[in-house]
Amino acid sequence: MLKDFDFDKKDTTLSGTKRSELGIELAALQRKLVNSDSSMLIIVDGWESSGKGHVLKDLTKELDPRYFEVSVFDDALDDYAERPFLWRFARDLPGKGRIAFFDRSFYSELMNDLKMKDERLEHHLGYISFLERMLVADNTIVLKLFLHHSENTMEKRIEKLKDDPYREFLITKDDEKQLKKYSKYLKHFDKILEMTNFDASPWHVISSEDLKDASRAALSIASSTLKSHLEQTEKKPPVPIRSGLKEKPLAKIDLKVAITEEEYEAQLEKLQEKAGELVYEMWLKKIPCVLVFEGTDAAGKGGAISRLTRLIDPRSYDVATTAAPTENESRYNYLWRFYQTFPVKGKMTIYDRSWYGRVLVERVEGFTPEHRWAAAYEEINEMEHNLVHDGLLIVKFLIVIDKEEQKQRFKDRENDPEKNYKLTDEDWRNHEKFEHYEEAMNEMVARTDTKDAPWIIIEGNQKEYARIKVLKEFISRARAFIDRHEGKKQEK
Amino acid sequence: MLKDFDFDKKDTTLSGTKRSELGIELAALQRKLVNSDSSMLIIVDGWESSGKGHVLKDLTKELDPRYFEVSVFDDALDDYAERPFLWRFARDLPGKGRIAFFDRSFYSELMNDLKMKDERLEHHLGYISFLERMLVADNTIVLKLFLHHSENTMEKRIEKLKDDPYREFLITKDDEKQLKKYSKYLKHFDKILEMTNFDASPWHVISSEDLKDASRAALSIASSTLKSHLEQTEKKPPVPIRSGLKEKPLAKIDLKVAITEEEYEAQLEKLQEKAGELVYEMWLKKIPCVLVFEGTDAAGKGGAISRLTRLIDPRSYDVATTAAPTENESRYNYLWRFYQTFPVKGKMTIYDRSWYGRVLVERVEGFTPEHRWAAAYEEINEMEHNLVHDGLLIVKFLIVIDKEEQKQRFKDRENDPEKNYKLTDEDWRNHEKFEHYEEAMNEMVARTDTKDAPWIIIEGNQKEYARIKVLKEFISRARAFIDRHEGKKQEK
Repeated sequence: MLKDFDFDKKDTTLSGTKRSELGIELAALQRKLVNSDSSMLIIVDGWESSGKGHVLKDLTKELDPRYFEVSVFDDALDDYAERPFLWRFARDLPGKGRIAFFDRSFYSELMNDLKMKDERLEHHLGYISFLERMLVADNTIVLKLFLHHSENTMEKRIEKLKDDPYREFLITKDDEKQLKKYSKYLKHFDKILEMTNFDASPWHVISSEDLKDASRAALSIASSTLKSHLEQTEKKPPVPIRSGLKEKPLAKIDLKVAITEEEYEAQLEKLQEKAGELVYEMWLKKIPCVLVFEGTDAAGKGGAISRLTRLIDPRSYDVATTAAPTENESRYNYLWRFYQTFPVKGKMTIYDRSWYGRVLVERVEGFTPEHRWAAAYEEINEMEHNLVHDGLLIVKFLIVIDKEEQKQRFKDRENDPEKNYKLTDEDWRNHEKFEHYEEAMNEMVARTDTKDAPWIIIEGNQKEYARIKVLKEFISRARAFIDRHEGKKQEK
Repeated sequence: MLKDFDFDKKDTTLSGTKRSELGIELAALQRKLVNSDSSMLIIVDGWESSGKGHVLKDLTKELDPRYFEVSVFDDALDDYAERPFLWRFARDLPGKGRIAFFDRSFYSELMNDLKMKDERLEHHLGYISFLERMLVADNTIVLKLFLHHSENTMEKRIEKLKDDPYREFLITKDDEKQLKKYSKYLKHFDKILEMTNFDASPWHVISSEDLKDASRAALSIASSTLKSHLEQTEKKPPVPIRSGLKEKPLAKIDLKVAITEEEYEAQLEKLQEKAGELVYEMWLKKIPCVLVFEGTDAAGKGGAISRLTRLIDPRSYDVATTAAPTENESRYNYLWRFYQTFPVKGKMTIYDRSWYGRVLVERVEGFTPEHRWAAAYEEINEMEHNLVHDGLLIVKFLIVIDKEEQKQRFKDRENDPEKNYKLTDEDWRNHEKFEHYEEAMNEMVARTDTKDAPWIIIEGNQKEYARIKVLKEFISRARAFIDRHEGKKQEK
């Protein structure tokens, strides 16, 4: 995209136009966006000293400042190294009706590293395509601008900055490096742009030989992209094609398994101690860990979690209970709120219900249209894959009880004055839908039981059995993960 | 400030000036701000339909969009009701080098409520004066603009909006209400402006009879305020006068107290169960709770926390370990990061070290100049007072050991292969400063042992004694708080 770029070719239709006029046009479209369910992400990337700040200023100048935000991603703060790669970008994604401008972005690391190995490159591309695809599917326009200038212009710009005592500090090592190896970087940028020039989120290369022209081009592209998005008739996107479900993983399990009280008492505390030691070891080794607990109402998730954590240092983990999204949360992509709580290195987050709500309650209750929840299997697999690649251990427990058992537990709650506040009419309504939830859980396990993050099915009819199995499985997965982690370290 | 306001009086020096020129002047000052340690908060408040959006747009138009942010505070999302009052505002305060614009603000609730009772008013004023004073002390310029228009103009504006099919939706109930009771609101606004017209953060009333003139005035005030702040020679602010310390609370305690192993074993689990039940009760009653653990290195904070939480449902609390601030955190006021983690209703946050680091490690190690840490006693008292008024229970534990005991524990760690990673050279350096820490703790307790949030001193030389006392004290404080809370509810 860059190699045969013609710096002299000009869009003559724009050259006479005032930037403020183009800005006002964009602002008019922004007002429509504000009242829509869509949002827009505008990435401004490109060469060092190519005028990103200048273009950003012109892009935003006429906009209503209440509904856009600019995020700068060049300074690598120490916070970021502790988090999954996408964390800091996910935080700043636009909510409904908003425009987010990214000055540099999740592309920066790729762009700055000439020597990135293919395997790492591929993983990075995985992160990016996952994120952009999901945003687009969620009605977010992803507009990617790359500011391109010639070697000659770059040299002049850096010289000029050097002569300006007030702006000299703006030149960084990266500027000098890119200029010195201009043709190498040109090739490298070109490769990355080609690889990430997705249909739904293509790159727009803009000549920044003349900064005002660059702003004009950016404004015009932003307007036309936003306009055509807003004009799209609301055609329903197709439902992702899912191959027929061959298996019903939950049908195979034996819910009659049980242990005696003696067996339970004999094992519980030892296993709890072991779990505590392993979490401590993961903390020492800076391994972050995510545990997911899913299951129908009254399956015993809470009880299993508190048995698991009893002898774990409370400073090393958090429990995140996932309820229906708040008003603020529902302005964003459904995975956004989980990115806020993914653990830093060495810590553990335990999710009492999780992002799987997308394909369970949101599916069964019809909160989310089919084309979106059906796409979630793949989205979730990719997210988990990325997290595992970022070094996280993910252990997912599905606690299963049968309908009869749920009924019995609801009745017990009804009769227990300490617990009957826990039981609502909604619970009984959900009970009626037990088979629907079962179907959704079957498909969930079948489609998201991946090598990176397999499901562990817990037979839940007997609580003691379930609790012991959760502990044992956690211990064996954590042990294996730590050993692999140590093995990899020694290889290096 | 509003009653005798002369709408006809014009600043003739400005009337000829272009808004873009004034904007460029402000942008030039912004560039200086970006490289300084200061920050700026600009609040744009005023009547409904008085042109806040218009003025905000002109204020930001020429600015570098990477270094400012606009927050709109009119929609009351459900998230907010779950949090302390200042939470949502604290999140959006400006970091170093940044400008934050607030469209409406922590004044909105005051302004919109004609019938606010004096007691509530006073509390609100307490929140606000606390926040503004602290921001100013931390090099944040607080600029407060109030847009004022006449009844006649307001009426015309609302009529005009009604005639505009694209903007009619902008008229809210509040617009109509304010117009209908114009003179009542005038009186009410006037009272609030007078009461909050603080020396360090005064109000600027701007006529918005003509919107362009309003923008000119706002731009000019913003520039002159920012300019004079940046020009201020770096005079060292005075150290707050603290009355002589009469008492050394820690000198009085008897560190020889101890219990037998039998007593410990006999009590521990019962108390843990009780603690679990109380936290459950607080969760049911939606009472948020904050526990603070302070104490020198090796005082036994971690051990006390895990004994306390053992039988508490892990879903109902988080433990926040406070280390030195990250690079991002240190861009903000020292209390900012704690506002991020204050609990929602019904949850508990346990701080393993806390905001008291300001008057302990930051004081002793000289990380913070004296005039700032000395001001922190009062700031912290006010923050805690506000939180308690927001309905939080705050329990603060200071675990005290003597120097000899610390030395012994360090030596034990040195000899324990499982724990010696915990011991660093820095620990030994801190050990040398034991008396300094003791002095700082004495002053901390003397100055922040308030009725709202008293300190509980825990004799820590014997760990078993300390753990039992923490449990017992937590139980009695929580019990009393819940009972008071229930009593208040019944009064209503």
